Amino acid sequence: MVLNREYEGQNCSIASALEIVGERWTLLIVRDVFLGLRRFEEFQESLGIARNVLTDRLHWLVSQDILEPVPYGSRPDRYEYRLTAKGADLFLTLTALRQWGDKYLTDKPSALLRRKSDQGPVEAALVTNGGEAVSIGEVELVAGPGRDPACATWRLADRAGPSAAKPEQSGPAGKRTRA
Amino acid sequence: MVLNREYEGQNCSIASALEIVGERWTLLIVRDVFLGLRRFEEFQESLGIARNVLTDRLHWLVSQDILEPVPYGSRPDRYEYRLTAKGADLFLTLTALRQWGDKYLTDKPSALLRRKSDQGPVEAALVTNGGEAVSIGEVELVAGPGRDPACATWRLADRAGPSAAKPEQSGPAGKRTRA
Repeated sequence: MVLNREYEGQNCSIASALEIVGERWTLLIVRDVFLGLRRFEEFQESLGIARNVLTDRLHWLVSQDILEPVPYGSRPDRYEYRLTAKGADLFLTLTALRQWGDKYLTDKPSALLRRKSDQGPVEAALVTNGGEAVSIGEVELVAGPGRDPACATWRLADRAGPSAAKPEQSGPAGKRTRA
Repeated sequence: MVLNREYEGQNCSIASALEIVGERWTLLIVRDVFLGLRRFEEFQESLGIARNVLTDRLHWLVSQDILEPVPYGSRPDRYEYRLTAKGADLFLTLTALRQWGDKYLTDKPSALLRRKSDQGPVEAALVTNGGEAVSIGEVELVAGPGRDPACATWRLADRAGPSAAKPEQSGPAGKRTRA
């Protein structure tokens, strides 16, 4: 495994989470899966990173039960990657990060989150437990004013939720640890 | 500047945000400031990272207007670091990341977020714009069941909000870019 556990001494869920998703590119791969990308070549094209780095990150995300490999072809065996429930739960973190970027780093948000039922805007916020939260299944991500039309990544899709399909085998990335 | 802008080709607020706060240790420094740490030696003790790396990260966070240096001594000049409004707005991202870590990576959360007025639990969630959000000034972070009593970091404090104090000079870290 190429990833270092740099935060190991930190007794804190933030540090633990950064051990899992803090490595360079990792959250962008997860973002891409939320946006509908599934296959190695799609991630590679979207992110433009070295293939060996992408391979490492995909294997890592599978080993951490964030992505699950689903076979889609054979000779040679081919897999696409879907979010597990654990991976899908990163949507809130990505949304908070995107909001912060939208607020401070750009004038033109590239994506907007809204509720499917009424197209009302949806945002991440602090709420009391009694508050009415919206589930990921109720929302969709649509192109914002800053969307780059040339960017192949932004196939905004209903497929942002976790896949219902289960892989028929454990996939190419070795041991899968269910939390 | 030691940081690489690896995500530069990515037209996306998530990628832009990761350029600013995705570097190793950066979010943990911001977390520590939320928890009440202010000074170089405090961060160094809390994080146990190399002093030159800590120096780089603090300068970076000041240059990005996430922390502001406030002088507290002279001969030699000494500065402590406080969150700007931009930095304080990272609280939601850190809260979402902490929740994810609490859910999947630990049985014993080390911190709990609650509303000061009624001690009711507060969480990050997706809400419609009409929803009732809680502001950072209304909440406090308190020790959870997994808090390590030996961990000096967890001086949970009212000081989690942005500082009202303004630095009297621009501080040691060069140009400060107000967004």
